[in-house]
Amino acid sequence: MTYAAPIADMMFALTEVAGHPRDDDTLPQILGQAAKLAGDVLAPINRAGDLEGAVLENGVVRTPKGFKEAYAAFVKGGWNAVPCDPDHGGQGLPWTVATPVAEMWNAANMAFALCPLLNQGAIELLTAHGSPAQKKLYLPRMISGEWTGTMNLTEPQAGSDLGQLKTRAVPEGEHYRIKGQKIFITWGEHDVAENIVHMVLARTPDAPAGSRGISLFLVPKVMVRPDGGLDGRNDLRCVSLEHKLGINGSPTCVMAYGDNDGAVGYLVGAKNRGLEAMFTMMNNERMGVGLQGVAIAERAYQQARDYARQRVQGRDVSGGKPGSVAIIRHPDVRRMLLTMKAQIDAMRALTYYTAAQIDLSKGGADAAARAAAQARVDLLTPVVKAWNTDVGCEIASLGIQVHGGMGFIEETGAAQHYRDARITPIYEGTNGIQAADLAFRKVVRDDGRAMNALLAEMKDDGLSGAALAALEKATGFMLFAGKANPALAAAAATPYLRLVGVVAGHWMLTRQARAADRALRDGAPAPEGAGPEFLALKIRLARFYERNILPQAEALETAVTEGGDDVATLDDAVL
Amino acid sequence: MTYAAPIADMMFALTEVAGHPRDDDTLPQILGQAAKLAGDVLAPINRAGDLEGAVLENGVVRTPKGFKEAYAAFVKGGWNAVPCDPDHGGQGLPWTVATPVAEMWNAANMAFALCPLLNQGAIELLTAHGSPAQKKLYLPRMISGEWTGTMNLTEPQAGSDLGQLKTRAVPEGEHYRIKGQKIFITWGEHDVAENIVHMVLARTPDAPAGSRGISLFLVPKVMVRPDGGLDGRNDLRCVSLEHKLGINGSPTCVMAYGDNDGAVGYLVGAKNRGLEAMFTMMNNERMGVGLQGVAIAERAYQQARDYARQRVQGRDVSGGKPGSVAIIRHPDVRRMLLTMKAQIDAMRALTYYTAAQIDLSKGGADAAARAAAQARVDLLTPVVKAWNTDVGCEIASLGIQVHGGMGFIEETGAAQHYRDARITPIYEGTNGIQAADLAFRKVVRDDGRAMNALLAEMKDDGLSGAALAALEKATGFMLFAGKANPALAAAAATPYLRLVGVVAGHWMLTRQARAADRALRDGAPAPEGAGPEFLALKIRLARFYERNILPQAEALETAVTEGGDDVATLDDAVL
Repeated sequence: MTYAAPIADMMFALTEVAGHPRDDDTLPQILGQAAKLAGDVLAPINRAGDLEGAVLENGVVRTPKGFKEAYAAFVKGGWNAVPCDPDHGGQGLPWTVATPVAEMWNAANMAFALCPLLNQGAIELLTAHGSPAQKKLYLPRMISGEWTGTMNLTEPQAGSDLGQLKTRAVPEGEHYRIKGQKIFITWGEHDVAENIVHMVLARTPDAPAGSRGISLFLVPKVMVRPDGGLDGRNDLRCVSLEHKLGINGSPTCVMAYGDNDGAVGYLVGAKNRGLEAMFTMMNNERMGVGLQGVAIAERAYQQARDYARQRVQGRDVSGGKPGSVAIIRHPDVRRMLLTMKAQIDAMRALTYYTAAQIDLSKGGADAAARAAAQARVDLLTPVVKAWNTDVGCEIASLGIQVHGGMGFIEETGAAQHYRDARITPIYEGTNGIQAADLAFRKVVRDDGRAMNALLAEMKDDGLSGAALAALEKATGFMLFAGKANPALAAAAATPYLRLVGVVAGHWMLTRQARAADRALRDGAPAPEGAGPEFLALKIRLARFYERNILPQAEALETAVTEGGDDVATLDDAVL
Repeated sequence: MTYAAPIADMMFALTEVAGHPRDDDTLPQILGQAAKLAGDVLAPINRAGDLEGAVLENGVVRTPKGFKEAYAAFVKGGWNAVPCDPDHGGQGLPWTVATPVAEMWNAANMAFALCPLLNQGAIELLTAHGSPAQKKLYLPRMISGEWTGTMNLTEPQAGSDLGQLKTRAVPEGEHYRIKGQKIFITWGEHDVAENIVHMVLARTPDAPAGSRGISLFLVPKVMVRPDGGLDGRNDLRCVSLEHKLGINGSPTCVMAYGDNDGAVGYLVGAKNRGLEAMFTMMNNERMGVGLQGVAIAERAYQQARDYARQRVQGRDVSGGKPGSVAIIRHPDVRRMLLTMKAQIDAMRALTYYTAAQIDLSKGGADAAARAAAQARVDLLTPVVKAWNTDVGCEIASLGIQVHGGMGFIEETGAAQHYRDARITPIYEGTNGIQAADLAFRKVVRDDGRAMNALLAEMKDDGLSGAALAALEKATGFMLFAGKANPALAAAAATPYLRLVGVVAGHWMLTRQARAADRALRDGAPAPEGAGPEFLALKIRLARFYERNILPQAEALETAVTEGGDDVATLDDAVL
């Protein structure tokens, strides 16, 4: 149950697909150092974290053995600050660097990595919407990791539909008093940092109903004095922890705000505009969860591959070797490993590519370039989130299957990845929500401009064939149905998103294969670690994907264009 | 977390697809009584069984609370005897009756149902291969359920490749002394019956190496006197229980035979022919596991559907209803439910159809009919096992997804189905083994006769189109590659099996839809509970499947015919 960060694969995707400069000498150093922390510190406590779980005792959450020390090492290494604003102590590194680094944390120990993931979202939020005083007081220590941040959205009656939330915020002088209950709060309470900065959605007394009456509040666990020193506890507590299928090392809290006088909270941004502000952060988190899909798949793959190399069972079907052989020799096992590896490469490249577009959307040469990059990010974020995580779960399942009977035994570790992965299609907006976001907000409302720009770029890259035609046809259908018959478009949204993912993955692997081909044939430069066998594998993976995964595109197109009618017209009482 | 057996769906599949007589008045009675036991007794202890698990203490396995009483009720109801030989106390009912009944046990409580499932396999084995004295002594009480049977195949170094097994059997007078360790023994030790009859594979001292030197032994937990009375304990014990991903209510044992003088065992059938005998039983078990795929999918579906009816969240996209609506109104949720339901119907019909073929293979009008039915059973058994269980896992995953965040919380129950289901593609021969069995033993070795007969019957039933053409083309490829390039055929076996399953499911739903259409339009007779809405849903499910699932056939054909090359020629050192 070890983890070795696939640095050569990461570097190749970064420089050959995402456009990260090949001459960035700091990149291999940073990745190498992160790989060390991930492999030596975080991965070894992953299984123990699952077994022991986070525990609530007398209102205090105790994280599993080793998590506190690992978090201290994480903070000490400055890893929390990688992508953050240098004005407040961040390193200001691009997302193309922060993304592979975060992939390592999530692959090594997803339950642990959720803590910095949520903190990062809170930092983004405060950076974009906080007042100068709020930034000055909170950001430096959130960025260093001394304090952590959380997102408090969900309530029992308000999950996908946040407009239903009921938590109240009553003004009192310069601050508000918050009262209400929040559920599913990841790392809502813990013992790895001295303070927790909760980002809480709530309603003020005069707020309009629905999603237009939601404001955002900063609610510290421990009150912070104007000089930055810590004061007494705020009126909030963790009431209980959820018993979950996976990510047991991470505390998922029911939080009670204001059982007594009301928790002191500070308005962030404009009143009644909290949901908009939260969405800034949620896009960040959605990329982060999509990255978890890659990460957990990579971890499952490494474990399955290593097992397949050492487990000896059965004869070589091609008769190449006498006697029993390692099961990696069996074609069915090799097919499973290639199915995992090809899709991991595709997902990773798409995620890094999208991260590079985020960088471009901020630092692009001109306004047009920045706008085009932002449009691409908006379009691909739900795809990265949902496609990666659906495929990530499938890959974790293959990881079990490669192990045979041992895969079902918890000590083996494959089952943990399968359990951990299963949250990713659910949180930060279910994959159904992502599909609706893609269909309605990113394609229909945009009149297909961003999607057509993507299709044009794929064609410029030489892509053609039935799969691309399928995506074009399905896009046309979504544009039509989205306005003419929203229920039909909604019924088609999930296969449409999958179709976009399948074709985008093909696009990414084609880019990788071409770069590999150039390096192999013409001696074009390739990143460190990319020897001839590595490059040949990239070409093989692209071809494997084209023949084994990409053909799904046409089936998905049929599901999009013909499959929704029976969904939309169903009288559900007969089910 | 209730379970209501879908009796109308079962009846419809039995009479309209599997050919069970419509005028069998006992069928609704039997199903009704079984449904009562499943819903009232077995389903309520399913969650507790998962939480508590089976526990080993001082060599004694304690089953979870309620299991002992439930098993007593099961035995008292005579349910164990349903398909068994009347000569030894069985009810001699056909597999078309035994199969829906067993579906109920597995849907209600899969961990519990494994006990009678394994017992049934042992009964089959002894009925087919035991001596008259062995049958007389053991069968009546195994058939009544007073004693239970187990299968002891796997050893640490011998899983899929049983030829590697090392357990020894040394002759001593009329019996043998068995020494060795067996792992993954389902219900190998427990407290619900007074004796356990272990069916154990082992080698005699003079046995040839490999799979041709394996014999089968009956090894009772408690020695049985010639008069049937119980004597002292045999030299065998449960050493430990596995910690598993799911089916925690069922003890999965490491068994030690002969720690002292050697366990007394009795040869069953001919020496060195144990593997052949075991395969008789394994086909039975494989059908049983395929049935578990349907059962757990049905359970997951019912839970998801019921949750979707009561959970209120979000607006109706078609604007039909003001305010928040139950999520079953959302097209994406309806698509998930239809994806579950359509495939469950397809899998159930294929399983019942194959069960009917088993009945025909034994009781068909003439030798030709019996042989044709047996060939169909041989062909479809690996499909029922592997396709049902792969799809069953996918459906259990959709079951979680319908619940959103609540699906990840163990108390909800959806996660247990997901965990329980995951064993089914693994045990009784992994699905990779099933695919190889289909490809090499059932298609290639048979020169495609049984598969061509199936294709011809599908055409006679009016099936046509791209999916059928895809199956024909893929079959032609397998016949060619199976002889010319076995590694290529082995690489294509898994998508080939899936393709057979997808098309066979379409065939089954087409039969159902036609029967429904006849009943609706022409007033043809339909089973009880099949009202106009029920019949219309059958037609809708077939159409939904045709548009959303069946198009995968072409993608799978490409994977079969083109996808294996990169698998077969891979140098796995580069992975």
